[in-house]
Parts: sequence; C-alpha cells; structure tokens
Amino acid sequence: MKSEARNPHLDELDIDFLYHLGLNTGMDLKNMFSGVKYVCMGGSADRAEALAQKAAEELGVAVPEGGVQTIGKTERFSLYRVGPVISCSHGMGMPSMSILLHEMAKLMDYAGCQDVQFIRVGTSGGVGVEPGTVIVAEEGLNGKLQLAFEQVELGETYSYQTRLDRQLAQDILAARGDIRAQLGKTMGTDDFYEGQGRLDGALKPRYTEAQRMAFLRRANEAGVRNIEMEAPAFAAFCLRAGIPAAIVCTTLLNRLEGDQVRSTPEQLAQFSDNAQRVVLRYIRGQLGKAVAGA
Amino acid sequence: MKSEARNPHLDELDIDFLYHLGLNTGMDLKNMFSGVKYVCMGGSADRAEALAQKAAEELGVAVPEGGVQTIGKTERFSLYRVGPVISCSHGMGMPSMSILLHEMAKLMDYAGCQDVQFIRVGTSGGVGVEPGTVIVAEEGLNGKLQLAFEQVELGETYSYQTRLDRQLAQDILAARGDIRAQLGKTMGTDDFYEGQGRLDGALKPRYTEAQRMAFLRRANEAGVRNIEMEAPAFAAFCLRAGIPAAIVCTTLLNRLEGDQVRSTPEQLAQFSDNAQRVVLRYIRGQLGKAVAGA
Repeated sequence: MKSEARNPHLDELDIDFLYHLGLNTGMDLKNMFSGVKYVCMGGSADRAEALAQKAAEELGVAVPEGGVQTIGKTERFSLYRVGPVISCSHGMGMPSMSILLHEMAKLMDYAGCQDVQFIRVGTSGGVGVEPGTVIVAEEGLNGKLQLAFEQVELGETYSYQTRLDRQLAQDILAARGDIRAQLGKTMGTDDFYEGQGRLDGALKPRYTEAQRMAFLRRANEAGVRNIEMEAPAFAAFCLRAGIPAAIVCTTLLNRLEGDQVRSTPEQLAQFSDNAQRVVLRYIRGQLGKAVAGA
Repeated sequence: MKSEARNPHLDELDIDFLYHLGLNTGMDLKNMFSGVKYVCMGGSADRAEALAQKAAEELGVAVPEGGVQTIGKTERFSLYRVGPVISCSHGMGMPSMSILLHEMAKLMDYAGCQDVQFIRVGTSGGVGVEPGTVIVAEEGLNGKLQLAFEQVELGETYSYQTRLDRQLAQDILAARGDIRAQLGKTMGTDDFYEGQGRLDGALKPRYTEAQRMAFLRRANEAGVRNIEMEAPAFAAFCLRAGIPAAIVCTTLLNRLEGDQVRSTPEQLAQFSDNAQRVVLRYIRGQLGKAVAGA
C-alpha cells in the first residue's frame, strides 16, 4: 500500500482487530506473513484451499501432512499461506470483497510486506466467448457499463475509478501457456439474476428477452467479455491503495446463448482450474526471475 | 410467493438448476422440503448450523447421530432442514443475499411450500443501544437513510420499497421472553468500513471523526438502532415476492462509542445466540398455536 493512502487513524489503535479474518495486531503478524508477495482471492473457501494446494505443488513449497492449513478464523473467509502466496476466499459480491480488501491491506501493512500484488482468481459468465476461456481483465466496468465504482459514505454517493494494472494483465496473459485465455473488459454487478439480465430469477423481470439480449450485445460491443460480481470494488480499492491488481476469471457459460450453468461438475472444476493455473504459472515465472536475478 | 410475482419464464425450463444451492428440479424437491414454513437466514455457515441444531432442540425434532446435516452443495451457502424450519447461510452483503433469495424462493415454490416466512437472523452494529440487544426491524433503510433498495438492471437504476411485515415484527418481539429486544429501523449498507462511517478501514477516509459522529447521530434520530449489510435487498425482494419477512439482529457493539468489535468470543457467541433464541421462541409459539388450533 502506498504510504499516502494509509489510514492515519490506525495509529490511534492499541490493537487493531481484523474482525472478519480473526487476526489482530497483538499477534506476531510479521512472523506469520513476512515474505508474502502475492495475494490470490477467490469466491469460495473450497477454491481458496484448492488454489493453496496447487500453489504448494507448482512452487515446490512443503505443506503439513493432511494438506494446507487455514490461518485465523474461517467463519467469514478462509485464508492460507503457501510461501510467498496467500490464498483467501472473498465470498460473493462487492460488499463481501470490500471487507476482505480492507482487512487484507491492513494485514500486509502490519506484516511489513512490500510490493504485494492482489490477484482475484474466479469464475464468471462469458459474453461471446467459449465456456472455459480465461479472461484477464483490462479494466473493471460496473453494471451501467461505466469505468466506475460507486460507494455510499455517510449518506452521500462517491465515484471511484476502476483502472487495473495493464502491465500486470499483460504479464499474466503471457504466462497462459496452453490454456485458452485473452484480455477483455470485466463487468461486475451487484446481483446475479436481475443485475445480470437473467430470465431465470424467482421474480417476473421488468425486461423482455429481446431487451436482455440487446443489453448483452451492447456490453459485448463495449469490450465486455465476462460478467462477475466483484470487479469494480476490487479495482477501485487497489487503485486507491496503490496496490497492483489483476482479475483473472474463467467463464462458465456464454451468456449470449443462455442463463443457466449447465456444465457438469467435472467441467466446472476444469474451468475453475484454468484460471488458477494461469495465475500460478505467472507467479512461478516471476519467482524464477527473482531467483535468476539474485 | 404470490402467483402474480412469479417469473413466467421459469415454465420454459426443462430443469431449473439452482446453481448456488446445488439443487435442481430434476430432484424430488417436494419430498425433500414439503412442510417447510420458516426459512431462517444467517450470515455464516457456522451460524446456520448452530441455528439448525438449536431448532432441533427447541422444537423437539430428531436429528441424525452426529448432528444436523447439510442439503445440496456447501461451496456458497450451507442449508439445513429441521422439521418446518430451513436454516441457511447467506454470506455477507446484499449481492450474496440476493442470490440466496432468488434460489430459495424458487425452491419453496417448486417444493409446493405454502405461507412460508423468511426471517433473517444475524448480527449488526448497534446505534445507541447496549451491545447484546436484539433489534427486530420495523423497516429497512439503505446507506442514504432512504426506505429504498436501488438495483441496476440492464444498465438502468430502479428503486424498490423496503417495508417489512409489521405484524410479524410485533409477533417476534412478543416472543422475546427474558432476552433484551426492541423494535427499531435497520440500516443496511454495501460496505462495512467506509460504507458505515468507520475510521478503522485500510484507507485514509474522506470524512473526519466529527462528520462520522454527526452521521451516526442523524441515523439514530431517524430511528436507526442498528446497521448491517443486507436489510434493503432482503426487504425489497420479500415485498415484491409477497413473502412475509422479518429481520432480527443482535448488536455486537454500540457504534456511538467506537468502531471495533472488542467483545470476547464468548460474549459474541452469547450475543448471536440471543437473536436466534428470540426467533426460535417465536416459531415454537406459532407451532404450538397450530397444534392447539388443529
């Protein structure tokens, strides 16, 4: 985090309780987390564990018998550390993501970690791309197709920019190897059903099938290649904090062809694995460079 | 769900995959869920399990050895059924809650459940009330102190009303027994830190301590007794669907006195238990009436 972005009020706290992580500054956070360079965030606890386990294999980091272990409490988020990598779940949607971002940025700061990158590794609905394609986000758009994240503070609405780190996106894409991946704009919405123009929600929608398709085509023409539920908040926070950030999401379906996720559990696991592998290949490559340059 | 609110497009689906619940209409949902009358929703999987276990005890429902069992997949939400009660987690924030609401309303509809009530049972920050107090919401306000939930659909913003069922709130409050509980307005925000005027987020806030306190006092004067992250979306959905709905949240701290949650884990467990007990007493009373009236 850049020093000018840091909250000066934190200096007034004797102990800072990172409530949703179950960690606090009374613990030896430096000992627990020093050396972390990459914070990977995925939606569910299952995926955070899977990514941590794969990171251990890909990076050759020894793990305890029985596999990787969580750190802190697991009621809200599940956090793993594997060498220079943290893998943590963020739940679904921007409010949940936002909580994790604040506490993770403070954690990295308290632990004295330098030059940390935040990478969201997740799943999404594709727009005009084949299911299983990994989209590395060029930028994050909100549900109104704006390059903005709107947040209400003390009753007033403020708008924050949602640019992402272009170089980091290029570097991650370059590490894709044999996995189908491409750059694209990622739209993040506050709802999965009506917020993404689905016709399979519980309630009678106010829009028709033709209006739904026209909106998805308009998004596609604006460069949107996938839709998820975290991009604007994630991009805006990291930009404010001065943390290099990337969003790498696999697509589970093509929204131009339907609303329902109909792939088999095996296919879905493979799709999710695609995004994680791209990111781990990127990290392995960076660590190799660091060793070669040492 | 009232019939005029139901999404007619659902009739076009051969099978409806309730993706985040891991259930679908190819399963015998009637057999699995018929007789459910109360859907209780709490933030975390741990709390959903705790409420299910307590429901079994309070209502005298037999559970398998080893305790209550989840139904469907547990990657996103954890769902338990105990007699006439479903206990399910909803994650943090309105986008996550919204996903659950759509899929749960469809589930109840497909299972043929009639006259179902949705009750959110959770935790919150208090505003001018002693920690541990249970607030039964009279209505849900958004972060701008409006009786509204704003949702973006196909790129446009729409506003929905957030009235709750006053009679249901009264009935739940009347079941409080020896637990400290009261009516109040519940404010739901899209962020825990800057969205609730906290001074302990990662980033330098744009507001001062004096402005923060002025906003919390203004909210308090408007009748707000607690702040959480789901009320407007929950109230708006249930009102549109015609589902009687209540929000029953314990308070973990008094925001007029600070931002950090500093109670011990034992106190926090007791606080959380308070809200669950009030709701279970209400349900037990209703079931007793049904038996007496039969």
